[in-house]
Amino acid sequence: MSAAKRFFTREQELVGSIKSWTDSPFIGDDCAVVADGVLLTTDTLVEGTHFLLPQIALRDLGWKSIAVNLSDVAAMAGRPRNLLVSITVPPSLDKVAFRELYEGMIECSKIYGAQIVGGDLTKGKALTIGITVQGQVHENGCMLRSGAKSGDLVIVTGDFGASRAGLWILLNQLDSAKDFSHAISAHVHPLPRLCESWSMVRRTAGRGALMDASDGLADALSQICRASDVGMDIDLEKLPIHPETVAIAQLAGADPVDWALYGGEDYELVGCIPESSLKDWVDDNSFRVIGVVTAADEINLKSGEKTASQLDLSKCFEQIEF
Amino acid sequence: MSAAKRFFTREQELVGSIKSWTDSPFIGDDCAVVADGVLLTTDTLVEGTHFLLPQIALRDLGWKSIAVNLSDVAAMAGRPRNLLVSITVPPSLDKVAFRELYEGMIECSKIYGAQIVGGDLTKGKALTIGITVQGQVHENGCMLRSGAKSGDLVIVTGDFGASRAGLWILLNQLDSAKDFSHAISAHVHPLPRLCESWSMVRRTAGRGALMDASDGLADALSQICRASDVGMDIDLEKLPIHPETVAIAQLAGADPVDWALYGGEDYELVGCIPESSLKDWVDDNSFRVIGVVTAADEINLKSGEKTASQLDLSKCFEQIEF
Repeated sequence: MSAAKRFFTREQELVGSIKSWTDSPFIGDDCAVVADGVLLTTDTLVEGTHFLLPQIALRDLGWKSIAVNLSDVAAMAGRPRNLLVSITVPPSLDKVAFRELYEGMIECSKIYGAQIVGGDLTKGKALTIGITVQGQVHENGCMLRSGAKSGDLVIVTGDFGASRAGLWILLNQLDSAKDFSHAISAHVHPLPRLCESWSMVRRTAGRGALMDASDGLADALSQICRASDVGMDIDLEKLPIHPETVAIAQLAGADPVDWALYGGEDYELVGCIPESSLKDWVDDNSFRVIGVVTAADEINLKSGEKTASQLDLSKCFEQIEF
Repeated sequence: MSAAKRFFTREQELVGSIKSWTDSPFIGDDCAVVADGVLLTTDTLVEGTHFLLPQIALRDLGWKSIAVNLSDVAAMAGRPRNLLVSITVPPSLDKVAFRELYEGMIECSKIYGAQIVGGDLTKGKALTIGITVQGQVHENGCMLRSGAKSGDLVIVTGDFGASRAGLWILLNQLDSAKDFSHAISAHVHPLPRLCESWSMVRRTAGRGALMDASDGLADALSQICRASDVGMDIDLEKLPIHPETVAIAQLAGADPVDWALYGGEDYELVGCIPESSLKDWVDDNSFRVIGVVTAADEINLKSGEKTASQLDLSKCFEQIEF
């Protein structure tokens, strides 16, 4: 079995089918790169699938819907410019709630230097927020998923599993929610890692690989390996996991490492860069090394020197199941 | 009461609110025009709101979802380039149906010189198809809604009311459906008027006004009047209405002129151009004159020389009702 085959989930197979039907070279990365270095990407949040009301405030939902799209631009080290907002409005949403949703979207857009320029309103049963971003490739280069090479370091921003932990707190409506502000914030108010991605591309000029871990760290690692035709050794002891995530996993009777690998919705960056790029990168380096890229046909999970297991893609969150 | 106030529906008021919240100059036309003459537009079709399965074949639905978006590009005489496809997939949709949907989308994209470059898949209860188009302003200019001037001619492509008539046949599942191929085709397989829009902008170099009548002819006329701060005299006897539309309206006990004005989903162009532009425009002129632009504060509907009534915006189809 080739690396390309081994690292497919069923959803990734479907995306492969769409790529062959449309004959588009762009499908399969976080953004499409079209003429003149223009980046295009779209992501949709659906009530009942991605969020439940009232567990997320409308203002947070607005913020998050923009942030997850900006994260896709960060995943290619691009600069977001213009946003289109398409909202399916259910009868239960009143104008006050609608305005709160918009305020969250506007706040996130402005902070990251993008602007809402248009959109579409329609009525329907479930609140659905579809965002499209048009951006520009960074002047120092564009980071794809396919640029990892054997010997590169695997690096990540932030920490993993916190969004899954925050979701668990929200679903279980615990009184202790105020003690878990990091985890809840990771879930409802993610920060797109644009500055971090620009810092990276300035140092690598596009050499390396990058994507975001929106569908989970395991998914991101496997997608980079598949696109780059490489393997990885990941050191589980180096995975950044916040103390709150560990505490919440204990409450939930779950394994925090499983949440970090497969939990999903951690809008952090996962990249592969040559070791030399890391050397003079001190001041603003918000990345941590969690492993190395190999020429092997597998992703090994190690604890220190001991090989623990291989990545289990069947644990990934999958949207589409046919 | 100013023209600006008179011509607002409730949905248009909401769009006005969004425009003020976002402080965006682009909101309110068919596409946003951003840096370097890039056009951006998005439109979403929701099961239960815009279509019912199985009354529309998946292949037609795919075609229509692209066509209605290309129609927004035609509404500014632009050239469509790249498409993003965002689909919410319900459990009832299998992979064969999913592929048919895609085949319809690909067929429509290719015919009009655009390509699908990316998108997003998510699961949910109602099939929802969100399309974004990135295009380019035509080299001869860009047609906005705001360029109509008193004395201009009001011109339209195609005919009106046919889509509403086709929908009536589909909803009533008549055996005579085969006799109404024009109306059914208008509803399930609309043709975006790109060539017609380019023909127009070549003659006017952007002077005039243009939009599509996706929300109905009445909506289009009122939006142009509001954006251009003008009025219109429309001659109802000159409204192009297909014989099938008249026959189906008779079956339904409806007024075909009401369907033509307020039925909606006629993806035809409605424009205003100086009379001089029409003179040497013979060979490929697919537009018909239906009225004139006035300096008045109202849209008068006339039958020949007799003033029949004023446009009744309360009859327009409205998506959002808060």
